[in-house]
Amino acid sequence: MKVFIVFAHPELKSFNGSFMKATVEHLEKKGHEVRVSDLYREHFKCVVDEKDFLNFKDGDRLKVAFQSYLANSEGKLTEDVYRTQANLAWADLVIFQFPLWWYTMPAILKGWFERVYTCGYAYGVGVHDETHYGDRFGEGVMEGKKAILAVTVGGSKTHYSPRGINGPIDHILFPITHNILYYPGFTVLPSHITYETDKAGDKEFNDSLNAFLNTLDNIDTVVPIAFRRQNFGDYEMSSLQLKEGLEQPNETGFDIHIKK
Amino acid sequence: MKVFIVFAHPELKSFNGSFMKATVEHLEKKGHEVRVSDLYREHFKCVVDEKDFLNFKDGDRLKVAFQSYLANSEGKLTEDVYRTQANLAWADLVIFQFPLWWYTMPAILKGWFERVYTCGYAYGVGVHDETHYGDRFGEGVMEGKKAILAVTVGGSKTHYSPRGINGPIDHILFPITHNILYYPGFTVLPSHITYETDKAGDKEFNDSLNAFLNTLDNIDTVVPIAFRRQNFGDYEMSSLQLKEGLEQPNETGFDIHIKK
Repeated sequence: MKVFIVFAHPELKSFNGSFMKATVEHLEKKGHEVRVSDLYREHFKCVVDEKDFLNFKDGDRLKVAFQSYLANSEGKLTEDVYRTQANLAWADLVIFQFPLWWYTMPAILKGWFERVYTCGYAYGVGVHDETHYGDRFGEGVMEGKKAILAVTVGGSKTHYSPRGINGPIDHILFPITHNILYYPGFTVLPSHITYETDKAGDKEFNDSLNAFLNTLDNIDTVVPIAFRRQNFGDYEMSSLQLKEGLEQPNETGFDIHIKK
Repeated sequence: MKVFIVFAHPELKSFNGSFMKATVEHLEKKGHEVRVSDLYREHFKCVVDEKDFLNFKDGDRLKVAFQSYLANSEGKLTEDVYRTQANLAWADLVIFQFPLWWYTMPAILKGWFERVYTCGYAYGVGVHDETHYGDRFGEGVMEGKKAILAVTVGGSKTHYSPRGINGPIDHILFPITHNILYYPGFTVLPSHITYETDKAGDKEFNDSLNAFLNTLDNIDTVVPIAFRRQNFGDYEMSSLQLKEGLEQPNETGFDIHIKK
């Protein structure tokens, strides 16, 4: 398969860096093709501004989504964004590997999504009418591709458990897994989380790595997160609220958007 | 009072820009002192790397939290971070104003937290023993200060309602309100949300602005989000799981960390 790894850590000698390099080596040995976008080494521009839109007219008011749409439709995005979109088009599987910093992805990766996910490409796509509210949440440009997060966490697993003070890890990641990855149509696999990486020795590193490589080796058997598709009957149009009674008893919040 | 506004939008002529400027004008007219950090116009560096730590030795392995701690304790952070920390020390109220991009803050603001929230300052502070797990979640450097998010959202309110497809807005913002603001001790006020800002005319702008200014004029009467303090009996030490029975019946996820 074709694997695109988007890597966001400042230090290649880190747990994350070693993990990424070992993943690449393993995948290539198994005959897969791998491309890596190493955002720190590439100095990936991670702030959206008017320079991202080559048809922006100086002095105009910058409306980000609108300008993104114009640049997208007129072929006036920047070379780094086109190159990244080509890597996404090429890939069967995209791995996003990053440390959880302040309970979400690092800024450099957040800005990557802001710039690469242009309007008319990742959002603002498809018919909006009384039966269909855009190609999103189960449809879109990433349909047929898989995505997985490989995340390192400094804190303890219990702090991210269902009653843990940080909130459950699946809820902390939901704005990424559901709202960023599932949104343009990725099939999202359960995230690979390594806790307490600051204290990890060789054993902890190898245990985590081997579990991840095992997932990759058996990727076709991994059951994706069962997010509900938007346009196929589960949601009221166009309030996009889940129809009454579809959730489990007492289920609330993010959880109702995952089929049990 | 002393108000520090951290503003993250590329366009000053935007809804956000006009909103921020009108807020400053109003507060100053009422006799308050205001400082603004306009992250885009300041070209605020928003990627954490070794250049943030003036005592980092070239060739060393960068361990971000550890190096942050060393630079923090040895006075080797950068001038922009010290200036920002001084503004935070000065403020009674901090307003974070930004558009919700891909369901969280813009990268430039995320990176602001990564750089300004140094180790030994915003985290890694206080005793860690069997009764106290650091000064955090209700204690810390921001204790006694208020914070509020002023957020604009492109989508419809129903999409962010309890059954809305994006997830409830309070849950989407919890990783910020609880895990970033409450963490170092801010008293966090309910977020001010404006929906469908791309379609907003003068009336919608003024309605939202006036509601926000009314909140600011009556800030002492605004009831903060009742997040539970970490070190005062509600959590098991040191698994930091909420003690059984403290939540409401059938309450799960992020909600259990808010007292009813």
